Formats: sequence, C-alpha cells, structure tokens
Amino acid sequence: MENFIFGRNNVYELLKTGNRSVSKIVLMKNMKENHKISQIIQLAKDKGIVYQFHPKEKFAQFGDCSHQGVVAYVSPVKYKEIDSIFQKNKEFKKVIITDGVEDPHNFGSIIRTAVCAGFDAVIFPSRRNASVNATVEKSSAGAVNHIDLIMVNSLSAAVDKLKNENFWIIATDIKASDNYYEIDYCNMNFAIVLGSEEKGISSTILNKSDFKIKIPILNKFDSLNVANAAGIVMYEAVKQSLQNSKD
Amino acid sequence: MENFIFGRNNVYELLKTGNRSVSKIVLMKNMKENHKISQIIQLAKDKGIVYQFHPKEKFAQFGDCSHQGVVAYVSPVKYKEIDSIFQKNKEFKKVIITDGVEDPHNFGSIIRTAVCAGFDAVIFPSRRNASVNATVEKSSAGAVNHIDLIMVNSLSAAVDKLKNENFWIIATDIKASDNYYEIDYCNMNFAIVLGSEEKGISSTILNKSDFKIKIPILNKFDSLNVANAAGIVMYEAVKQSLQNSKD
Repeated sequence: MENFIFGRNNVYELLKTGNRSVSKIVLMKNMKENHKISQIIQLAKDKGIVYQFHPKEKFAQFGDCSHQGVVAYVSPVKYKEIDSIFQKNKEFKKVIITDGVEDPHNFGSIIRTAVCAGFDAVIFPSRRNASVNATVEKSSAGAVNHIDLIMVNSLSAAVDKLKNENFWIIATDIKASDNYYEIDYCNMNFAIVLGSEEKGISSTILNKSDFKIKIPILNKFDSLNVANAAGIVMYEAVKQSLQNSKD
Repeated sequence: MENFIFGRNNVYELLKTGNRSVSKIVLMKNMKENHKISQIIQLAKDKGIVYQFHPKEKFAQFGDCSHQGVVAYVSPVKYKEIDSIFQKNKEFKKVIITDGVEDPHNFGSIIRTAVCAGFDAVIFPSRRNASVNATVEKSSAGAVNHIDLIMVNSLSAAVDKLKNENFWIIATDIKASDNYYEIDYCNMNFAIVLGSEEKGISSTILNKSDFKIKIPILNKFDSLNVANAAGIVMYEAVKQSLQNSKD
C-alpha cells in the first residue's frame, strides 16, 4: 500500500503542489474523459512525468481503494524533525499530537483538518499509531503534503521538548472536568493531544499535560470518533484566534 | 452488506440497547476470550438469542469489515416519519439534514456525532445519499440505534415541512459570508444542512435556507471532510446551548 496515491483529486493535488517526486501516473484505458483527468494529463505533460493507460484488469492490484481510474507512483512522504516547528517564523505555533490513532482513515482525516485549521505540524509516535501510508494520504485528501509530519520514537521526549520551547500541552480526556471551550487558546504556543479510540492518552503524556479538556456528550452514548473530536477542538482554537484578531 | 452488525463494541451496544431484533450471533471459534466477548455471550443468554461458534474460514464471507470475530444478524434499521420530530416533548428541537453524503463512513460518523451532540434526528434523501447499511452502522459505532433516522423521497418537501413547524434552516456553504459561530443556535428549532463532498448542497435547498454559514479555512487547501464539518457546526450549537443554560 506504500507509495501510491489514489484518486483524481489526490493525484491532481499532488501534481499541483509538486513537493513529492512522482515516477509514473497510471490512468484507466477507455475512461470517460472529464475535466480533472484532462488537468492531470496536462500537469503530467508540463512536468515531464510519464503517464500510461492500463486496462481495467490491471487496477485490481490496487484493491478497493476508490482509485477512480487514476494512480500515481510517488516517493514516500518526507517526515520532518521536531525542530522544524521551532524554526517557523510565526509568533505562536500550534500542533497536534496523536498518541495512538491507529485507524488510517481517522489519522488522515485529522491531518486534513489540521491543515484547514492552519496548524503547523502533526506529531505522532513510530509505534501504536498509523504511519503515513497510501490510505492515510487518501483520507487526508492530499493534506499530508501541506503540513509538517513529525514521527518520533519517544512521544514523551517530544512533549518535554515542546514544553522547553514554551508550548502548553492540552490533553483531550473523557474524564477531564473542563470543557474544551473553557480554555484560552490565544497568544500562546500549544499542542493538542489526542489518544487512541480504545485507551485514550497514555498516562505518561497525560501526567505531563498542562490542561485536560473534554468534549461534553449530551446523550448516554459512548463517545465521539477521534477525528471528529480533533476537529471540534482545533476549530475552537481557530474561532478564538479569529475573534481575538478582530478585537 | 445489509442486516449484519460487525465488531465487538457494535454488537455489544446493539444487545444492550435492545431496540433491534437480533436473529443470531456468530462468534469466531477459538478466539482469545476477552471481557467484551464474555459480556456479549452473557447478554445473548439473558435475552435468549441464539449464538454460534464458527471457524475462521466462514468469516471470509464478511470481507474486510473488521468484524473482530463477532457478527450479529439483525433486522434492518427502522426509519421514522418526519412527524416523529414534531411529536417530541422538547421545547426546541435540532436536526441534521444530509443532502447527498454518499460515503458511508462519513454518513455513519455524522450520525455518531449527532447522537453525542444531542440532536433529535437525521433526515436524508432516498437518492444520492448513503442509506443506513452495515458500513454506516459500523462507522456510527452503533449510534444509528440512538437517534431518529428519517429517509425522505423529497428533501425539498421535508424542508418545507420543517419550515412550517418553525424550524430555521441553516445551510453550510463554502461560499457563505457568515462564519458558523456568528449565528445564534439557542432558543429555536433548527436544521443544519450538509451537502455532498463534490457538489455541496443542491440549489433548491440552498434557496430555501434561512442562514448560510461557512467554516473558515486558514490555508490554501480544498476543504474539510463533511463529517468533520458537521461535527464542528453541531458542537458550536452544543457549546452555545450549554453556555446559555449557565447564564
């Protein structure tokens, strides 16, 4: 599953941003022409990237990945070092930490929202968390190419480093007493931590956190999907910063 | 894919709520015992539901649906009539309308968040929208059993009916000028409308809307996943209502 990008929008985004090396594009033979396909072919021509038409049968190897008849062969996503965050020329930085988000659809969706919400980086551990594979890339709608992705061996060491650089650590925890909208996300560097769907955030990280927040559940029901929870908290921060800048 | 419930949590939720008729539960033979499995077996015993152990090979028929060795055979989800909303004994009602959300994972995720956010119903058209199948049910983490699901032949007629019953129609539209947090969701009946990922909300429904709102995107990037967009708007309403009730 590594090193393929599936789907029209994703391949188009990939070619447009041009920050990944593409070795080949494969299109399905006798496909109904549409605007996106023409754009992809034009971009491939402009950039001198090989593109080939393959019969439908050959697409079976890609499984049920909704490739929509378009697949790009690419170099893997390049991960950044954590220091890349501190070097950014911004007054306040905001990052997302996923502590054990194993479902690639959720992980991709979190990355997509992080880009929309103007976050600077996504930090995730090399174990017990999805890595950025083709499914994550597709679920992110290509957002993986628009944000710093930082894979670390020790999340605990990464959190220590963030704290040393004046980041506030905000942990989402179903048992927290404060609601997510009761804290102030403005005028500070912060990292929002999300845990696994099964177990939440590990106790080591929870203990290092400066704030614990929860999303209220108005029904006798389990809990939110982690990607939705991430979006709700990230956008509370967006909203506060936009309202703050207007004052 | 119809009429199966996959996965330990989902089957457990299903048995616990007990509002769907379950004809049979199938468990994988020689599976490592765990607490959830024991709970499922106990609930099946309590309710007199047949349960059987099948060898691993037999589970192949369910495909790659992360069944975790547990599948329940159930009656289809029962849809409600739109009048069920108006008959609820609540001062103000809130509903979600999906106008062409075709991805079953997104649709299931929207239903899950709607339950967490205390919404009263999800209204969706019988065409150009996912119906509530096994994938939707799994993505909803069983939430389909906790909310009124209303499938309508004409979304336009449904919106007219809501308006006649004093509902305000709030459309999410990438071209709107107001941000989603700039309107007041308190002390009124309202319906939030979400469109398809490709085309947004149909013009008929957009023209009938009382408010149009957008979620600001802080990056040169396409847009949010529809399920995340839904969660962000629903939780703005939750937040306002909780803050309002405290005043």
